[in-house]
Amino acid sequence: MGDDCALLRPDAGFDLAVTTDMLVEGRHFLPDAEARALGHKALAVNLSDLAAMGATPRWATLSIALPSVDADWLERFSAGFYALAERHGVDLIGGDTTRSERRTLSVTAIGEVPPGLALQRSGARENDDIWVSGELGGAALALVHPEIAEAAKRLHFPEPRVELGERLRRLAHAAIDVSDGLAGDLAHIAERSGVAATLEYEAIPRPAAFRRLKSPELERNCVLSGGDDYELLFTAPRAHRAELEALASELEIALTVIGATSAGAGITVLDGAGKPMAHRGGFDHFRDQR
Amino acid sequence: MGDDCALLRPDAGFDLAVTTDMLVEGRHFLPDAEARALGHKALAVNLSDLAAMGATPRWATLSIALPSVDADWLERFSAGFYALAERHGVDLIGGDTTRSERRTLSVTAIGEVPPGLALQRSGARENDDIWVSGELGGAALALVHPEIAEAAKRLHFPEPRVELGERLRRLAHAAIDVSDGLAGDLAHIAERSGVAATLEYEAIPRPAAFRRLKSPELERNCVLSGGDDYELLFTAPRAHRAELEALASELEIALTVIGATSAGAGITVLDGAGKPMAHRGGFDHFRDQR
Repeated sequence: MGDDCALLRPDAGFDLAVTTDMLVEGRHFLPDAEARALGHKALAVNLSDLAAMGATPRWATLSIALPSVDADWLERFSAGFYALAERHGVDLIGGDTTRSERRTLSVTAIGEVPPGLALQRSGARENDDIWVSGELGGAALALVHPEIAEAAKRLHFPEPRVELGERLRRLAHAAIDVSDGLAGDLAHIAERSGVAATLEYEAIPRPAAFRRLKSPELERNCVLSGGDDYELLFTAPRAHRAELEALASELEIALTVIGATSAGAGITVLDGAGKPMAHRGGFDHFRDQR
Repeated sequence: MGDDCALLRPDAGFDLAVTTDMLVEGRHFLPDAEARALGHKALAVNLSDLAAMGATPRWATLSIALPSVDADWLERFSAGFYALAERHGVDLIGGDTTRSERRTLSVTAIGEVPPGLALQRSGARENDDIWVSGELGGAALALVHPEIAEAAKRLHFPEPRVELGERLRRLAHAAIDVSDGLAGDLAHIAERSGVAATLEYEAIPRPAAFRRLKSPELERNCVLSGGDDYELLFTAPRAHRAELEALASELEIALTVIGATSAGAGITVLDGAGKPMAHRGGFDHFRDQR
């Protein structure tokens, strides 16, 4: 800080993973969004991208545009940002502050990964297990039911799966973070890897709140197509099941097999009776890309 | 591209220089700004920061928020961005496109520099020459006289001094790019290096247009305090004069000695008769920082 650039000395021989996200008020967050949550989330979404590559986060830059200098808001925002940064050993190495009527945040995060070990979307093979961490659908549920605390926490304070991503480097074939929705994000892996993917709907872990709500359509939309959960979705050979189960215990993160890949293309979701279900987002999204 | 992050393999053992800038419509550029110029400038200001550290630009990310998808505007913006990127071997490695009523651009640029050779603001020593590349005041003049083509070019298509920055690694003691204005930017060097700086006003190279305008106050404000010129301001030992003059010839960039450092603190600007001149920006800016 204080010079024209920040100077970094990466570990010799490591690859760098770089990701960037821009969040705009009114589009990615509401004007009354809690500043601390926003600070957390602006960094979390980028750390989640690094985790999906198996990269260890090291540095971040933050550019921020605000309608006026609001010291109280900035303090709370910074508290959220720095608390997460500190927890993962991320140094804020630069940034820019300017004015704009709509609050706008742009974060670039840089991580390190041993050469050749980065997880990519294109690495899935036929007959891989499809795994997901944690639970899906909570963040989308919070948009409809903001009063459900466990869901609200998923939306406002998503936990990037940094350590899990690092540990998956030698266990998973392909990974992505669930930011756009399970079906859509899985379609990215399937398409780029040249495989088909089948999900068992009932196997997908989800917040307990859905059981109380008894709204199958809302539940299906949230679980299959809801974004913003920032869990890791990955494929791994069956031979790694025991190791992955041990890893789940060690990290105290739920890891669940929710399907498998096979020869072919496209995403199929099977209901409890083994019949294909309609789902939003995934398949269309997949077709859009062809 | 296509994965959660871009993967880079930096040259082993090099330091990385990282810089980021956010440009907001209405604040950093006008709504009717020419899209190609804006694409050029969004990258140029970041490459200029890298040049001021002596770093070789390698990679950039671009996040862009637009009120609507305007393919024509985006094409012209990209033409300006990519033309400059290509000229300096910069790979666009990632980005994000979203919506906002005000066009907002955020660029992060990453460069490489041999370990320990980065130019910093704090490196100036007593009795250094103070040098500047090119001419100063043109960009500020264009704000008042947009009809003067040579000035408008400086404002809209600033040329980052990338190769010069690289070559200064072993010749200069300290460097900065002139983005806020000569006096203010020199004050950063003086303060961080713990030296005083004296400028010879008449020695400062400036566009020929000022001679025709015959407006001493406008000229003084543009030359001493006008920002956005993106020339390199640097200090170097007197023993390097001949080498720097040879470098100027080789690169076909004017390099001019405009003053010297000495023991003490603060910035003094001397007029043609050797008397201190009043100037905006520099000295106050300096005092603000203490």
